[in-house]
Amino acid sequence: MNTPFNPGLTGSRLDRADQIRIKEDKLAEVRGSLRARLLKLNDLDPEIGPDNMLVWGSMIDRPDDSELLFLGMEGDTPYFAPLIENAPPTGQAAYAVWRYLDIMPPEEASTYAAARSLIEWHRGHLFCSRCGNRSQVSKGGWGRTCQSCGAEHFPRVDPVVIMLATFEGKALVGRQPRFPPDRYSALAGFVEPGESLEGAVTRELFEEAGVHATSVRYLSSQPWPFPNTLMMACIAPVESDELTLDTEELEAAKWVTKQQVLDAFDGAVDAQFIAPPHFAIAHTLLRAWAEDK
Amino acid sequence: MNTPFNPGLTGSRLDRADQIRIKEDKLAEVRGSLRARLLKLNDLDPEIGPDNMLVWGSMIDRPDDSELLFLGMEGDTPYFAPLIENAPPTGQAAYAVWRYLDIMPPEEASTYAAARSLIEWHRGHLFCSRCGNRSQVSKGGWGRTCQSCGAEHFPRVDPVVIMLATFEGKALVGRQPRFPPDRYSALAGFVEPGESLEGAVTRELFEEAGVHATSVRYLSSQPWPFPNTLMMACIAPVESDELTLDTEELEAAKWVTKQQVLDAFDGAVDAQFIAPPHFAIAHTLLRAWAEDK
Repeated sequence: MNTPFNPGLTGSRLDRADQIRIKEDKLAEVRGSLRARLLKLNDLDPEIGPDNMLVWGSMIDRPDDSELLFLGMEGDTPYFAPLIENAPPTGQAAYAVWRYLDIMPPEEASTYAAARSLIEWHRGHLFCSRCGNRSQVSKGGWGRTCQSCGAEHFPRVDPVVIMLATFEGKALVGRQPRFPPDRYSALAGFVEPGESLEGAVTRELFEEAGVHATSVRYLSSQPWPFPNTLMMACIAPVESDELTLDTEELEAAKWVTKQQVLDAFDGAVDAQFIAPPHFAIAHTLLRAWAEDK
Repeated sequence: MNTPFNPGLTGSRLDRADQIRIKEDKLAEVRGSLRARLLKLNDLDPEIGPDNMLVWGSMIDRPDDSELLFLGMEGDTPYFAPLIENAPPTGQAAYAVWRYLDIMPPEEASTYAAARSLIEWHRGHLFCSRCGNRSQVSKGGWGRTCQSCGAEHFPRVDPVVIMLATFEGKALVGRQPRFPPDRYSALAGFVEPGESLEGAVTRELFEEAGVHATSVRYLSSQPWPFPNTLMMACIAPVESDELTLDTEELEAAKWVTKQQVLDAFDGAVDAQFIAPPHFAIAHTLLRAWAEDK
């Protein structure tokens, strides 16, 4: 599939093979295959080989107290990740993992993102939200079933909009209090029930920065495994550059030119801010805008 | 906000007023306002006035056993919906509601969609998925808090891709077994953890119809309250018109021309299929393609 943007964490080589994971007999067959590969993890962190790729072992490496997540097939080879359910959910992004995402190819990071998101989802959803009883892993890790009330639960993916407000050749970047020093990025927020993507962009820009979008252009998307969002990047021209910041969400925000964005990417000594890392779609978005893509 | 597509169920007049719903004192103030309006519902169905608009009462109409969902503000007027938690989740789409969506203006349907989705989310999430204890409504209905383990839960929105595969001037429409007779629509599927929107379009087209997308163009989106999805419409040229159908997902599929889509919209006597209703984004998508927008 051609894409003009190629954001990080996209393009996994694995076929998710839904026709296998929904059938218990087919799952048992791939689980028993001598070719089956098991992802090596240190809790949620990946192991990375000298080639900057994920490291896979055989099923013999499976921890005693683990379930198996079926990640998909590449040719005849089934790929799994170990799921240890009884570990606490870790919650938000661990900057420690970013050094792995920095060196892994995007399609490898994409495979890792699916495994990590699924494991975190299971750990936060051991109990049925409908009846409160303990539920069980189903569909090779792509669901949970409650044997008490019969409810089926599927992994949650939270849609998030991440957007550049633009005005007269400048774009708006802001920083959250938790960001590393001098880092600025595009504004972002969760899409809520009863809202379109375009509606969420408009609402968030007004809530966080007091600017009114006149239109919204979708650019590209990426999965983000901290813990489980679908990041959708947009560009939104706004009516004015006058800002009213929500200081609980944003510590600071400023308008930057295309040249200032390019300087930030180059790490120029007089750069006005530190850009988001190449594997984050905020980077893709800023680059697409600065390079007029 | 200008949008070239204006899908159904978008454009609510209410300001969600996050600055109110996250503060208990501000919420109490709007809850106590004499101006406060309460949405009239028959369980999950809306009441519709002679003007095809939602019907609102005063707080005196609040059912005894209900919580209040804060839907937002219009000027000085706060809007609420009653939440009766202890009713079973209804699950999938009720075609009965479609006749209301048929006559309500899109921005009114958008307000209703938010209320309906939130109510269904609460009913399916009375218990904490992390520890299994009963949780409580928080943030004016935009969250639940578990007093046993401290977990905070936020309303779930499931991102879904809905797409037209295109090949040499034709587009692919299919029908699910649950569709009304002769109804055909765009193919659709959930975005999974670790997947981009473009990746989900590509995977679903291959899984359901055996066609390979060469690119993906995002068009527009809408919320869909049965129970709680974000529908994102895309157009995807594919390599060939040869189909391999997943007959568990699709009962039938066929390639249609732009003229055949326009005939279906017109309800022509020799129309090849019945088009999706105007308030569904599948309609917006088919129209955008057939009219070269």
